[in-house]
Amino acid sequence: MTEQNAIGVVGGLGPYAGSDLVTKIFDETRATSDQEHLPVALISFPAHVPDRSAYIADQSAPNPVLPLVEILRRLEQAGCSVAGMPCNTAHSPIIFEDILERLGRLGGSIHLLNMIEATAASVAEYAPDAKRIGIIATTATIECGLYADALGAVGLGAVNPDSNYQDDIVNPVIFDSEWGLKAMSNPPSAEARRRLLDAVEHLRDRGADAVILGCTELPLAVPENRIRDMPIIDSTRSLARALIRASHPERLRRR
Amino acid sequence: MTEQNAIGVVGGLGPYAGSDLVTKIFDETRATSDQEHLPVALISFPAHVPDRSAYIADQSAPNPVLPLVEILRRLEQAGCSVAGMPCNTAHSPIIFEDILERLGRLGGSIHLLNMIEATAASVAEYAPDAKRIGIIATTATIECGLYADALGAVGLGAVNPDSNYQDDIVNPVIFDSEWGLKAMSNPPSAEARRRLLDAVEHLRDRGADAVILGCTELPLAVPENRIRDMPIIDSTRSLARALIRASHPERLRRR
Repeated sequence: MTEQNAIGVVGGLGPYAGSDLVTKIFDETRATSDQEHLPVALISFPAHVPDRSAYIADQSAPNPVLPLVEILRRLEQAGCSVAGMPCNTAHSPIIFEDILERLGRLGGSIHLLNMIEATAASVAEYAPDAKRIGIIATTATIECGLYADALGAVGLGAVNPDSNYQDDIVNPVIFDSEWGLKAMSNPPSAEARRRLLDAVEHLRDRGADAVILGCTELPLAVPENRIRDMPIIDSTRSLARALIRASHPERLRRR
Repeated sequence: MTEQNAIGVVGGLGPYAGSDLVTKIFDETRATSDQEHLPVALISFPAHVPDRSAYIADQSAPNPVLPLVEILRRLEQAGCSVAGMPCNTAHSPIIFEDILERLGRLGGSIHLLNMIEATAASVAEYAPDAKRIGIIATTATIECGLYADALGAVGLGAVNPDSNYQDDIVNPVIFDSEWGLKAMSNPPSAEARRRLLDAVEHLRDRGADAVILGCTELPLAVPENRIRDMPIIDSTRSLARALIRASHPERLRRR
C-alpha cells in the first residue's frame, strides 16, 4: 500500500470538530461506493494540545505548537500530503505561523491549508452577493482580526459583534462549563443554539449580509446553511472542500 | 509527545462507519473539556481495501487482508495500543483470523478487538433479559454464522431473517447502488430506513426479543436504541465502549 496523497485531519481541537471535518470530507466527495471515497487520516490527541485561547491570551501558558507539529508529522508518516486543522483559533498567527515555520525547518512535505483563508475564499461560492460578512467566533479569534484580514484580502468586510455582546453572549456558547459546546457537543444544549440564533440577528442588525461560523464547534448547534434567508457559512465545510480541491480536485462534489 | 495508548480506528469500511465509530468513542467517554477526551486515530483508505463480501463469496476476488494489516501497522506507528475495525463482515474468520495471524507474525503490539464478540457481550448491558437475538447484517455476515457463534458463546440464541427475506429485503439496504447505505449514507434514503423498520418486525415475528444492527452502515439509518419496545443494539457503539474499556476503563461513561 503506497498511499501518499491522503488528507490529514489534525483533530482534538475539539474532538467533535475533528470527526465533523472527516464526515464533511466524505459528504463533499463524489462517490457511490466505499472504494470511491478519498483517503483520510485523523489524529485526535486532545490531552497533548493545550488550550489555544489561553495561550493566545498569555504566552506563559502551555504552548500548543510543538504537539501540533508532531501530529502533522505523524499524519505525514501515515501517508498524508495535505492537512487541515479544524480550529479557527489555532490559526491566529502566533500559533499558525509558528507551526508553518517549524514544519518548514523539519523539511516535511505535508501542506497545511489555512482554514481562515479557505473560508474567506468560499464566500464567493456560498454567498456571491454578500459584501459585509458577520463573524461568530471565540473572543481570541475576533481580537486577533483573523477573519477581518482574510476577508479584506478578498475584498470583503467583516462585521464583529458588539464587544460586550461578544464577551457576554457569544464566547460562553463555546466555553461555558455546563451548557457550552466544548462541554456538551452531542447533542448541543438548547441554550447554545438559542444564543447562536440570536447572534445571527445581532449581526444582521449591524449590517451583515452573510455570517461565517468561525469556530468549528458552532455547526454542531447550527447545521443550517440559511437562517431566515441569511447565508450561514460553515468554516468546517469550507475547509473540507479546500482539502479535496488541493488533493483530489476531480472528486469535489459540485455545489 | 509520547502517546502510546491511543485508540485506533480502521476506517474506510465504509467511510461513514469509521467517522461514526470515532464520534461514538467521544460520546461514550466521560469528559467535560477537549483535553479530557481520549486519544483516537483513524485511517480511512477505502480505495486500498477491496470489498469484504466479494472476497468471502469468492477467494479469487481481491483480498482485503494485506491492506488491513498495513493500516493497523500505521495506526500502531501513530501511537495506538488497541484498534477496532467497524465492519462486521470483515470479522468473518477467513479475513479476521488471517489479519490476527499476520499481525502476530510481524510482531506488532497493537491489540485488535473483535467487534462481534464485543457486541455479543454488550447484550447483557443493553438487553439483560433478552435470550433470542435478531440479527440484521449482510448476507456474508449471516452465512458465516458470525453472530450465531458469538451469541452461543455467551449463552444466547441468534434469530436470522428468512433467507428469501435476507436476500430480497435486507441485503439491498446495504448494497443497492441507488438507495442503499453504501451509496447514500448522509442522509440515508427513506427506502433503507423503511426496510430496516420492517426487518425489526420480521425478526420480532420470528421470536427475537432484541435486535443487533450487525452492519456498521445500519445505525446511520436507525439511530434509535428502541423500536416499539424492542431493544436495538448498535454494534458500532458496542465496539466504541469495548475500545474505551480496553484502553482507558476509568473514562468509560456509565450507562
